[in-house]
This record gives sequence, structure tokens and C-alpha cells, in this order.
Amino acid sequence: MSDKSTKQSLVTLLSDFGICDEYVAVMKGAIAQINLMLRVVDITHQIPPQNIAAARFCLMSAYPYFPKGTVHVAVVDPGVGGKRRAVAVELAQGFLVAPDNGLLSGVLSQDSVIAAVELTNPEYWLTSQPSTTFHGRDIFAPVGAHLANGVALHKKGREINPENLEKLDLPECAQMNHSVKGCIQYIDHFGNLVTNIPHNYVKGNDWNVEIRENIIKARKTYSDVKVGEIIALIGSHGWVEIAVNSGNAKLELDVNIGFQIRIIY
Amino acid sequence: MSDKSTKQSLVTLLSDFGICDEYVAVMKGAIAQINLMLRVVDITHQIPPQNIAAARFCLMSAYPYFPKGTVHVAVVDPGVGGKRRAVAVELAQGFLVAPDNGLLSGVLSQDSVIAAVELTNPEYWLTSQPSTTFHGRDIFAPVGAHLANGVALHKKGREINPENLEKLDLPECAQMNHSVKGCIQYIDHFGNLVTNIPHNYVKGNDWNVEIRENIIKARKTYSDVKVGEIIALIGSHGWVEIAVNSGNAKLELDVNIGFQIRIIY
Amino acid sequence: MSDKSTKQSLVTLLSDFGICDEYVAVMKGAIAQINLMLRVVDITHQIPPQNIAAARFCLMSAYPYFPKGTVHVAVVDPGVGGKRRAVAVELAQGFLVAPDNGLLSGVLSQDSVIAAVELTNPEYWLTSQPSTTFHGRDIFAPVGAHLANGVALHKKGREINPENLEKLDLPECAQMNHSVKGCIQYIDHFGNLVTNIPHNYVKGNDWNVEIRENIIKARKTYSDVKVGEIIALIGSHGWVEIAVNSGNAKLELDVNIGFQIRIIY
Repeated sequence: MSDKSTKQSLVTLLSDFGICDEYVAVMKGAIAQINLMLRVVDITHQIPPQNIAAARFCLMSAYPYFPKGTVHVAVVDPGVGGKRRAVAVELAQGFLVAPDNGLLSGVLSQDSVIAAVELTNPEYWLTSQPSTTFHGRDIFAPVGAHLANGVALHKKGREINPENLEKLDLPECAQMNHSVKGCIQYIDHFGNLVTNIPHNYVKGNDWNVEIRENIIKARKTYSDVKVGEIIALIGSHGWVEIAVNSGNAKLELDVNIGFQIRIIY
Repeated sequence: MSDKSTKQSLVTLLSDFGICDEYVAVMKGAIAQINLMLRVVDITHQIPPQNIAAARFCLMSAYPYFPKGTVHVAVVDPGVGGKRRAVAVELAQGFLVAPDNGLLSGVLSQDSVIAAVELTNPEYWLTSQPSTTFHGRDIFAPVGAHLANGVALHKKGREINPENLEKLDLPECAQMNHSVKGCIQYIDHFGNLVTNIPHNYVKGNDWNVEIRENIIKARKTYSDVKVGEIIALIGSHGWVEIAVNSGNAKLELDVNIGFQIRIIY
Repeated sequence: MSDKSTKQSLVTLLSDFGICDEYVAVMKGAIAQINLMLRVVDITHQIPPQNIAAARFCLMSAYPYFPKGTVHVAVVDPGVGGKRRAVAVELAQGFLVAPDNGLLSGVLSQDSVIAAVELTNPEYWLTSQPSTTFHGRDIFAPVGAHLANGVALHKKGREINPENLEKLDLPECAQMNHSVKGCIQYIDHFGNLVTNIPHNYVKGNDWNVEIRENIIKARKTYSDVKVGEIIALIGSHGWVEIAVNSGNAKLELDVNIGFQIRIIY
């Protein structure tokens, strides 16, 4: 358990609350009530409503770029008020605070877990009688602020086995002799298709992506092809990506998260 | 009048300026020019253009969650450049800075007023010759920053009677023997309908909302009904709310702000 | 070259990355890794994809309102991974960090340049092997953070002649005897048309704008005309602007950036 009481820490927020209403601000107010000096960074609040897969990907993608000790509060929570657990996890590089619904499984697959707790101690909540609909305000944001303040993880609740945290079901990525099987795991707002095939599964520069009946040649960057042309590349996330130069690959190819693709040589 | 000169304070911003242009950033620049260390939190800038009712609700809903002494700058200002007054108000829990057009009336009904002034002293403005179209930048944000800096309210202008601050006309909520009459006072971006009936006007757990020809049964939380089903509940704001589980109640019921509803037992 | 090592500085971010994905947060993480205490203000991330003209205008419009020494990181970068240069510029009032594609030419026309460099020193990048698609994260944000930290400009790379920085081609604004020729240089999200004619090119209060077959009379502020009526005025940016009271001038007049207009007396 870390002792960060003398260090500044950062809190990030991720949700599907949108930015039209006051919901995100209310979480920031709850954090400021605990420590006005804490810095808060929004990852995004535009996750499509209740889309745990998109939230999982954005959190996993942002996580490695934040300083050690950063506390990530993520609230995409279709089961709020029901039986899903609220949890916090301490990892080598940071902390996670979220509903236990698979949202965390991306980060958990990429960093080493130190400990995990179920949030059962109302002492660190906004109120001991949380609402049934807004645990972001009543539980997750306050717990995150206390963690960033240096309060130890184990004080937040009952220790649980990190192995039992929920995982999100996506078709696995599999390396074969002359190909790699994978799927679309995220589609960004440009319509770029991010697969679940990591860059180190790909050999050399001479490879293609097979998607529906298309064979798409790998290039270095968008401007290596003409405007409107489809391209495969290693994206900035470090995953194999399919894009259209100055266009929208999702619309062009009409695919969704989970759609299976293949790398061939 | 408070002396906060040795304490950090927070400034919140609320507007209908959107986030596509540089307007909000310009207000933050004006604040940073006064004190680079002030923390700024956006409540929302996506209020529908000139919708004072929506702004009033979001400000009122966010207000109680911020630390004592927070300065809330709110600019939804169809009358900018005309005759409406620019005002600042000191309350028990915080400060408000805004055009006097009803936007503040939600907070004013929920916290006790200490003093109010009309912003007549250009010493605390960005310029003594403000534009006719952007008082957010020229008057409201700078005045808010000076208040957060600890400058006393009465220095900002001529004292006025808080009783005379503009109120927004909404049908009042009325408790009868066997029912409560109210109206929709806000619709969030999920399409949830927030009424103006507070939770403490509702007796027990066995009640219904009548809206158009529908009778909607009260439940605890969204997941108590099937996906797509209409539900009435006490929302996270503390008001009676009408929602559709994983759906959009506004589209389903085709109503707008001001539409009258009734609680029946 | 400035020595700001003992002063707090501010970093602003402007991009076309949108707010749906984690891209902007990743830039903020990269900045926080360098200095957790740096304050970051978003100018906007909703620039229409690859629209350098809109980015140039928003940056130029926000720039004068920020404190001296502010570092502005602007990333609208259709040529990323190609041959365009990455640059940083020190001016009297602040610093600019951006791709050299015309984006900076608005600010450069309005403040005096002290020095400019091409970003050739990978010591101040996130990694010495930047991606080919996301220089905002790998180069621009880290360089901006180091500048805000007080590292001198010349350490960032090879000095270049500021005269050779790319300019954006817009029809120039020209003062004639009885008229001023200009064009639309920006359209905000309200649909207001901002011309490239500065307020000091306009004589007196009795002038008109000719746009297509319309002659539009100048007024002081929106509320000087009826709702739905077209109006010409000196906008809050300091440019001649065409607007519709509570309406959308872009839709009303069907024009785009670059469309030529004329002021007549």
C-alpha cells in the first residue's frame, strides 16, 4: 500500500454521462470538497451510453500515459443500484475505481495488480446512504479523491481476489503460422477501426488485413495513400488499425465492435 | 462579507457557448490573467442556446456539491448589451455571478442570501468599455475571479435588494390531499424528465405519476423494470423523475419543459 | 529567451481530436508526467477535422486573453508523418507549438516574434521514436510542457527563420475610398459569420455589409433587431460580423469560409 500523503496526485474521470448536464461537474465538486488542490483530468464522458467495451478500451489506452500513482475513476454503470460490486484496485502504475463489470479488464491485462477491494466502507463515500442511480457522485468520485489524498486502499473495504474481477468477453487474438486472427475492439470518432492485434504480433512491414472481402495493404501513415483510400497500419495506440485517409472506415466497411478480421502475409 | 484572501477558492463556469469555439477558453484566460492559481471547473457549456430554464436547473443541481466559498459564474444571456442587470450574490455556501434574468432563481430558492450587488464598478472588469455581445469575458469571468481572490462583494458595485432579483416562471408544485401537482423542470441528455416535485413531497413507496394518459408506477432504480419500460423514481437530483430503462423518456412521451404532471396514490 | 523556471506557466491545447476518444487525455497525461503542477486549459478540440483555417482563427482569437508566457499547443495536422515541419515559436506574449502548416499564421500576424525553431531535438519528446500518426502526444504536448517548465526555446531544435513559417491563404482585406473588401474567415457554432475586416477599418456607425444580394445595416448588438433578423456588427472578436438575432446566419445566407463580402457606406 502506498503512502502518498506528501505527494500531489492526479484523478482522472471517465464516464458515459455526456457533457450537456451537470453530472460530471457534480463529481468534480464532490472531489473538491475532499481536497480542493487535487487535479482532475477528464479522459472522456462521451462513451456511448452503457458501452462497457468502449470504456474499457479508452481507459486501457489512456492509462499508461499518466504519472505513477494516478487514480482513475471510471463510471459506465448499467447495473447501478443492482447487485454488481463497486471496487478499487491498486496496480504498479496507478489506482482504478469503478463498478466491477468488465470495464477494468483492459488495464488489468496490462499492468500488475497489487491489491483489490470491494468498496464496503461508507466512511469514504459522500453519504452513507448513496442514491440508487448515481454512484459516480456518491461512491466512486469520493473514494478516488481519498485514494489520491493518500488514504490506503485497504481502508476502502473488504479485500477481494483480483482474479475474480469481471472480464469483458471479446474474441481472443490468436497468432497462427501464416496469419493472425483478431477482432475490432474499438471504433474512434473518426471511424478508425482499432483491432485487438498488438503491434508485436505483426512480422515485418509486408502484411495485409483481410476484412469482409477486402484485402488491405499495410502502410506507415495515413498520407501514404490517396484521400479516400483504405489503409492498414500500426495505430498510435500500438494496435493494428484500419482507416480511410481523410475518411471514415466504419461507414466504408460497415462493421462494429467484435467484428472478426485476419492479418495475412 | 467574507475574507478569503488566504484561502484557495474555486470558480465554476456555466454557459450556452458550446465547446466548438474559443469562447469558453477566453473566459478562462481572463480568469488566469487575474490569478493563474485559481481552479476552474466547467459545469456545462452545452445549455441549449438562451435556455434560461435549463441553466437555472443545472446551476441549482450542481451548487450544493461544491465547497463553501465556490464562485459560480453563469452566462446564459439573451439580453446581453440590453437593459438587463449584471449581478453578483453572496450566499451561505457560495457566490453567484450572472445576468439577472431568472438563471439564479433556483439556487436563490435553496440557500440563504447574505447580500447582492449590481455589477457597476468597472475596476473589476476586463475593460472599462465592455463589448456589447460578450459580457462573460468582459464582466462576469473577471468579477468571479476577483471574488474567488477574496475581494469583498460590496466592492463590485451598488448594493441591491435580493428580493428583486428576477425569478423564472414555472408552474409551482402543489401538495394536495391525495396527489401532488407539478411540472417537468428539466430534461437531461438521456431524455430523463426531471419534475419540480421534491422527494420529501412524496409519501411512502407506493405512488404513481400521471403524465398524459399514462400512469407510471414508482420504483427504486432503473434496473427494476425491463429495458424499454417507463419508470418513475426519485432521481439522483432529489426530484421525482420519469425515465425509460436504457431509453429516452422525452422521445417516448413527447413532452417539454413546463409540461404538467401529477403524483397520485 | 525567457527564464520562467520560478514562475507557474499555463499550457493551452487546441486540436481536431474531438472529445469522444482518449486522445486529448493522453496529451494531458504526457504533460502531467513532465510536471504534475502545470495548468492546462482546452481552447477547443472540436475543430472540424483537418480544418486549418478554423484552427488558425480560434488560436488567434484566444491568444491575447491569456497571461504572458502561456504556451499554446495546437495540433490540427493533416500532414502528420509526412514532410511538414514541427515548430515552436517564442513571441512577446507567449509560445506556440504546432505543425508548420499555416495554423500559426493568425497569431504571427498579431504579435512580435522573438525566435522560432524546428523541433529536431528528441530529448524533449515523449519518445525518441515518435509514432507516425500522433505527434500531439509524442512531440507537441511534451515540448509544450518543457517550455512551460522554463526550458529555453533554442534547446528544442534548430533555429529557423520565422519569415518562412507557412501562411494560410485567405483573400486579403482591402480598404478602398468608399468601401472595404473582405471575406468570411470563420463561422462559429451559432452560425455567426466572422469576417477578416478589423473594427478599426470601419468608419463611424453608419455602414452596411453587402453579402450576395443583401445589404445589411450595422447595429450595436443582437437585440437591436427583431428575432430572426440579419444584423451586421463589430463582434466580440473585434472583427466585422454578420449574425441573425437568435438564429443562424450561415444557414440563412448559405456561405462558407473564404466567401467575399464588402462594407459600403
